[in-house]
Amino acid sequence: MGRMVTLTLITFFGAIICCSWTKNLPNAPSPNIIIMLMDDMGWGDLGVFGQPSKETPNLDAMAAEGMLLPNFYTANPLCSPSRAALLTGRLPIRNGFYTTNARARNAYTPQDIVGGISKDEILLPQLLKTKGYVSKIVGKWHLGHRPKYLPLKNGFDEWFGSPNCHFGPYNDQSIPNIPVYNNSEMLGRFYEDFKIDRKTGESNLTQIYLMEGLDFILRQTKAQQPFFLYWAVDATHAPVYASKRFLGKSQRGRYGDAVMELDYSIGQILKWLRTFGIDNNTFVFFTSDNGAAVMSGPNESGSNGPFLCGKETTFEGGMREPAIAWWPGHIKEGSVNFQLANVMDLFTTSLVLAGINPPDDRILDGLDLTPVLLNSSQPLKNRPIFYYRGNKLMAVRLGQYKAHYWTWSNSWEEFRQGINFCPGEEVPNVTTHEQKEHTLQPLIFHLGRDPGEKFPLSVLSKEYQGALSGISAVVQQHKDTLVPGIPQLNMCDSAVMNWAPAGCKKLGKCLKPPESNPWKCDWPH
Amino acid sequence: MGRMVTLTLITFFGAIICCSWTKNLPNAPSPNIIIMLMDDMGWGDLGVFGQPSKETPNLDAMAAEGMLLPNFYTANPLCSPSRAALLTGRLPIRNGFYTTNARARNAYTPQDIVGGISKDEILLPQLLKTKGYVSKIVGKWHLGHRPKYLPLKNGFDEWFGSPNCHFGPYNDQSIPNIPVYNNSEMLGRFYEDFKIDRKTGESNLTQIYLMEGLDFILRQTKAQQPFFLYWAVDATHAPVYASKRFLGKSQRGRYGDAVMELDYSIGQILKWLRTFGIDNNTFVFFTSDNGAAVMSGPNESGSNGPFLCGKETTFEGGMREPAIAWWPGHIKEGSVNFQLANVMDLFTTSLVLAGINPPDDRILDGLDLTPVLLNSSQPLKNRPIFYYRGNKLMAVRLGQYKAHYWTWSNSWEEFRQGINFCPGEEVPNVTTHEQKEHTLQPLIFHLGRDPGEKFPLSVLSKEYQGALSGISAVVQQHKDTLVPGIPQLNMCDSAVMNWAPAGCKKLGKCLKPPESNPWKCDWPH
Repeated sequence: MGRMVTLTLITFFGAIICCSWTKNLPNAPSPNIIIMLMDDMGWGDLGVFGQPSKETPNLDAMAAEGMLLPNFYTANPLCSPSRAALLTGRLPIRNGFYTTNARARNAYTPQDIVGGISKDEILLPQLLKTKGYVSKIVGKWHLGHRPKYLPLKNGFDEWFGSPNCHFGPYNDQSIPNIPVYNNSEMLGRFYEDFKIDRKTGESNLTQIYLMEGLDFILRQTKAQQPFFLYWAVDATHAPVYASKRFLGKSQRGRYGDAVMELDYSIGQILKWLRTFGIDNNTFVFFTSDNGAAVMSGPNESGSNGPFLCGKETTFEGGMREPAIAWWPGHIKEGSVNFQLANVMDLFTTSLVLAGINPPDDRILDGLDLTPVLLNSSQPLKNRPIFYYRGNKLMAVRLGQYKAHYWTWSNSWEEFRQGINFCPGEEVPNVTTHEQKEHTLQPLIFHLGRDPGEKFPLSVLSKEYQGALSGISAVVQQHKDTLVPGIPQLNMCDSAVMNWAPAGCKKLGKCLKPPESNPWKCDWPH
Repeated sequence: MGRMVTLTLITFFGAIICCSWTKNLPNAPSPNIIIMLMDDMGWGDLGVFGQPSKETPNLDAMAAEGMLLPNFYTANPLCSPSRAALLTGRLPIRNGFYTTNARARNAYTPQDIVGGISKDEILLPQLLKTKGYVSKIVGKWHLGHRPKYLPLKNGFDEWFGSPNCHFGPYNDQSIPNIPVYNNSEMLGRFYEDFKIDRKTGESNLTQIYLMEGLDFILRQTKAQQPFFLYWAVDATHAPVYASKRFLGKSQRGRYGDAVMELDYSIGQILKWLRTFGIDNNTFVFFTSDNGAAVMSGPNESGSNGPFLCGKETTFEGGMREPAIAWWPGHIKEGSVNFQLANVMDLFTTSLVLAGINPPDDRILDGLDLTPVLLNSSQPLKNRPIFYYRGNKLMAVRLGQYKAHYWTWSNSWEEFRQGINFCPGEEVPNVTTHEQKEHTLQPLIFHLGRDPGEKFPLSVLSKEYQGALSGISAVVQQHKDTLVPGIPQLNMCDSAVMNWAPAGCKKLGKCLKPPESNPWKCDWPH
């Protein structure tokens, strides 16, 4: 597959050398849009964000050619709600990517989840289609794996990748291996047809995802049709992997190898955009779905830089994301913008770039970042960041101040089993192992002076009172207008696992599902 | 004072516009040397090292024009031993900047210290003088304040600054305010003649230090004589200060204001080197004396990025330093070198650059970094980093591995009083509050995968055994050949304080010292 695409690229490259026809492409009014979403990559994993080994020369160059956004956030500290928020422009509490099974528990879309993205939500590619965009997702979907929830039923024209995480290998008896789809049919399964060597960490999946992305870009460029590429690679999610060429190359071990390969691949994509002559007409945004999964230890997880804790938590390490916007000729090179922004803004911003009015029949959480990106201004001064964990609003940031209404790392029970969401870190009354309520007197941090959330402001200070009164008003307004969506992540059932995905028959890959026996999913943290 | 220098600069600038005589300066074989040593600034305080507020555009540009050294260390986790090491090229255990009053206690040179730099040590400016260099120190000396220990008695030709920290204000009864010297005579005292407003944080000291540096550079350039400028500013040491123009400007509060002013001043120095036409003939090195003093809280201290703990400790946060080498035309621009290096290398490297043979009658700990700096190679593969606390070898790094033989943050007694050297951090068995011995089975970390020292390697792993055997050999060799210097920091006496520094008489600033009553200094940590 990779080889075929390579040949196509070479042929195409030959074509532009000979005829330079791309130079004659009209400068489409609606730019192409590429969102590169990493999986569990942390803020501190990029050289430009302070990784001591500085092994991301392509991302660092992307930042030097574009805009760095040090105050960029996800919508939820784990993968699938975060991705649902990106594609709907709405907080998971609104779009249904949460559970009510227990308070403040994170939930996602494992194989036995019954739910998925609600038909009432409108996804970015559905809207982009109204302006003639062709959309492809490469990599992890994670908005539900039952047929009606899959990408081609929800606005994407193409898909290469998997509906769930690449956990495994499974035995295909009690649990099926996760399928890899090409559009609406499976092509094979992880560990069977798409190898990931759990011992060595070798897998060529990132190579394949790179070539799938480039192939799509090339075809759309030739067709002179605007495109949306959602490049959702997952090499930095445990079990982390890299192809042979990158294994053992990083100072940081296997996780670093995965980062190096992703960095290389991003460099290749940007290079080809230039080669195709569409760099001035392609808006590219790089970010990650949540903070580094520091509970997995240094071999399988990254760095959240100076921030507290990581994935699953509503501390900065769980939700502050690396973010780079790139669009030569439109975004000022080498700029840094401190605007508070988040993945849901990518929804609204993409629509504005495409010349589409955002839907007005629902509350959107995403704002239009084009004034920030194109004019380097910082006009959205009073925009808050909401930190949800499951169904619970845990914290709110406004300006430099962040108020924690509830704190929780993980339960004592988990913690005593050795699961630690904040390894090596312990801030008294902050990284609590019980769900601790502070609503009557929120903990407030100044994130400029104290990005690591280690020194709560004194409640007696004027600074505290001023910050609290601003945040309180925002929280009140948010709660008053909040209509939670129907929770999609409450029910589980082994029968819904990936036993017999579309296309399995011709591959001889269909497995027999067990009887349906739904239960309320258990979400431990 | 500042004004006079400004006028001189303007006159000079006029001169080069009219005649461009600097262009005709011979390209001296021995480059000028500028060492910019910050005080308590942390690795994570620079944008290029991941500070989220990215408020160091001049230092970031300096890195882009020069070489970044992410594995650069100090020789001791606090100010005065670190400075003694820089100027002698030798570990404090050799040059005498330690105490034997209690095991593993850090000691420095407060006002009541009796000792100082030993006459048996050879300082960098003394050696540079043999090749015609003129040397000036601007800022904090900290190698002893009794007359024989002062800079002009120890190789420097000029000095503008103070012998001790800018603590205070004192009442001049029980404790005198710290003097500020111009060469061998005092000019006044902190808080009296050189204001630091403890309430607002306002002080124009950095402005003065900038102008003193520029004035020296200008005079040496005119005189066509090679120079060594040791620019040892201290605005980021508590109590932190900035001049009015910078106060309130940082997202990080007052500490950030101080960083911004230092960054601005460094930008000015580099700019004037270019204006004077001597940038290609001036080697500039930027670093700090020890890690950020995180125990002082976010208003008065900086960031050690992803590293553990800070000043006073032998964890990475105490001893890993920001470091940039800059020499246009000689050091490759935008390079990053992962060589393990330290402040003592600046001694040896400066001598090599000046064409002087390092002394061969003593053990030097500094290595020649010119192959690293000028050829971007990394040839010193097996060079260890020693982490001393006072008289105790606590840890050793070799390659990516760091072995802790002893661990200690601070005592339970101090900790219970609220003094915390590792706020918000707690790594079991690592950030210990007793001096914990691990010599039989050192804790070993892989600093590439785990720069935050949170996950010790399993002692049963092959990796542990391999790392330990390499480090053990290095430690054995170090201990076998170590001859400790005579400890200079054992005795204190109120009579030796800065009561009547040279020059006090004509200023009417002499104070009457008490009777001599020496005691063994108490070093709490």
